[in-house]
Amino acid sequence: MPTFDHETAVTVIGLGPMGRALAGAFLDAGLRVTVWNRTPGRDRELVDRGVTSAASAASAAEAVAASPLTVVCVVNYDAADAVLRQDAVTDALKGRTVVNLTADTPDRSRDAADWAEAHGIRYLDGAIMTPTTTIGRPEGVFIYSGSAKLYGEHRQVLDALGGTHTHLGEDIGRAAAYDVALLDIFWTSMAGFAHALAVARAEGVSARELTPFAQGIATILPPLFEEFAGDVDDATYSGELNPITSGVSTMSHIVHASEAHGIDASVMRAIEGQARRVIALGHGTDGYMRVSELLGRHLR
Amino acid sequence: MPTFDHETAVTVIGLGPMGRALAGAFLDAGLRVTVWNRTPGRDRELVDRGVTSAASAASAAEAVAASPLTVVCVVNYDAADAVLRQDAVTDALKGRTVVNLTADTPDRSRDAADWAEAHGIRYLDGAIMTPTTTIGRPEGVFIYSGSAKLYGEHRQVLDALGGTHTHLGEDIGRAAAYDVALLDIFWTSMAGFAHALAVARAEGVSARELTPFAQGIATILPPLFEEFAGDVDDATYSGELNPITSGVSTMSHIVHASEAHGIDASVMRAIEGQARRVIALGHGTDGYMRVSELLGRHLR
Repeated sequence: MPTFDHETAVTVIGLGPMGRALAGAFLDAGLRVTVWNRTPGRDRELVDRGVTSAASAASAAEAVAASPLTVVCVVNYDAADAVLRQDAVTDALKGRTVVNLTADTPDRSRDAADWAEAHGIRYLDGAIMTPTTTIGRPEGVFIYSGSAKLYGEHRQVLDALGGTHTHLGEDIGRAAAYDVALLDIFWTSMAGFAHALAVARAEGVSARELTPFAQGIATILPPLFEEFAGDVDDATYSGELNPITSGVSTMSHIVHASEAHGIDASVMRAIEGQARRVIALGHGTDGYMRVSELLGRHLR
Repeated sequence: MPTFDHETAVTVIGLGPMGRALAGAFLDAGLRVTVWNRTPGRDRELVDRGVTSAASAASAAEAVAASPLTVVCVVNYDAADAVLRQDAVTDALKGRTVVNLTADTPDRSRDAADWAEAHGIRYLDGAIMTPTTTIGRPEGVFIYSGSAKLYGEHRQVLDALGGTHTHLGEDIGRAAAYDVALLDIFWTSMAGFAHALAVARAEGVSARELTPFAQGIATILPPLFEEFAGDVDDATYSGELNPITSGVSTMSHIVHASEAHGIDASVMRAIEGQARRVIALGHGTDGYMRVSELLGRHLR
């Protein structure tokens, strides 16, 4: 991780838990950090900590004018646009760079890039794939898309956030596409865990009792992801060892065991429904991953 | 892993992929193995491989009569009951032990244990938490419930399957409860992965491109599971670093990005719906795991 001598400046817009973590990591790396947040008061701890190197701007326009690079991390693109698309802010950003680490959909990233280009603002999209606690540490995972040249210019400052930084390509929507897909996996897995704990508790099994085994399930996912990714890319869906019919049988046990305890099984019902559609379409001897192809069928 | 001298006998009922793996591991450990499957022809490779130590029984009754211990692994308890509850089989099992590794719900396990007790059959329930390819290897995970004494009697033979074997308690339904909860996590996570690959593909990102990052998501799950298990057991759901309102924002991006490509988002819609109910109930500043408590709310 590079360190700086308070000469290099960066602005952080948004001081939610993630924005504060980003600003803190920049400060720790020795950058001169200017922060701004829509709701005041979130900057106190940072400014106290940064002494001379951290400043809280009076306005968003003043904040972005203080640095060649502004990193934005707010709740979504509606919130980002509400700040950046004020005339004073847009004017102040002209010729400067925005790296937008706000999570939203690929179409919003593309729209923002069009807006930036129309106003002479240099623009990169990005996403943070790991929790707040990983910022400034080796476990952090950051992805970016947009101009590789622009990324190269700011890479050293971004590296100050610690962790792994990957530029995914020139298509500005690419980081958001990865972000949405990866958060899909994350939240769906967490929903499974939350539901499993409810079922376990109804059966007298505590969360702490189940967890070592739940961790074991998480451990078997990475090699399966690799195997199944090949199946999906190559459109081979062998179910020889584990046909989707066998998976559906398990899914129905989960629905039954949940509803026997009055526990909402809407998520597993939707999963089972998708799998049953695959079987109804004549793919019962295929593996479960045939579902992925079915979900996007109209695209082929 | 213990090895035997072909004097100790075990019977395996069910020769699907998992049953064949179990019988093969028993054979490799030097046990005398008798196999039976409802559909004939699945035993050929095993019998050839076992030479004198493997035998295919002419009937299920003959199969269970050949060994003091019968391991059952079929598609579900309907299938298991259809074999075991034939009079000739039930009679032959009297005084012998059944270890039922078939997956189903806890209530089916309890029903089977009642049936076994009424017929003088010694009965343990169990489940296999890892894929077929792990059988006979250190990665295998087996769980059991029912009489600890009975488990102790057969433990050495079961250990011949390799991997880790855990007796979870005397309540016969406990292994099935763990099984259902863990498969809930597994299938929900796989559904998230399948869906993420469909969304990624629609955005021009291949499964192989996404997978290293998807594996990164799987890697962050175990420590989060541990942290959140504590929240659920202690009914503390701090959302200070990551309130459920922020999670819901992400979930709606996933729904939006999916449906913009015509991709079925029913699973994420159900997940988002549960989270929105938590917020509507006044828990918007809590963390996502409050969902777990809501799902089982009537139990408290």
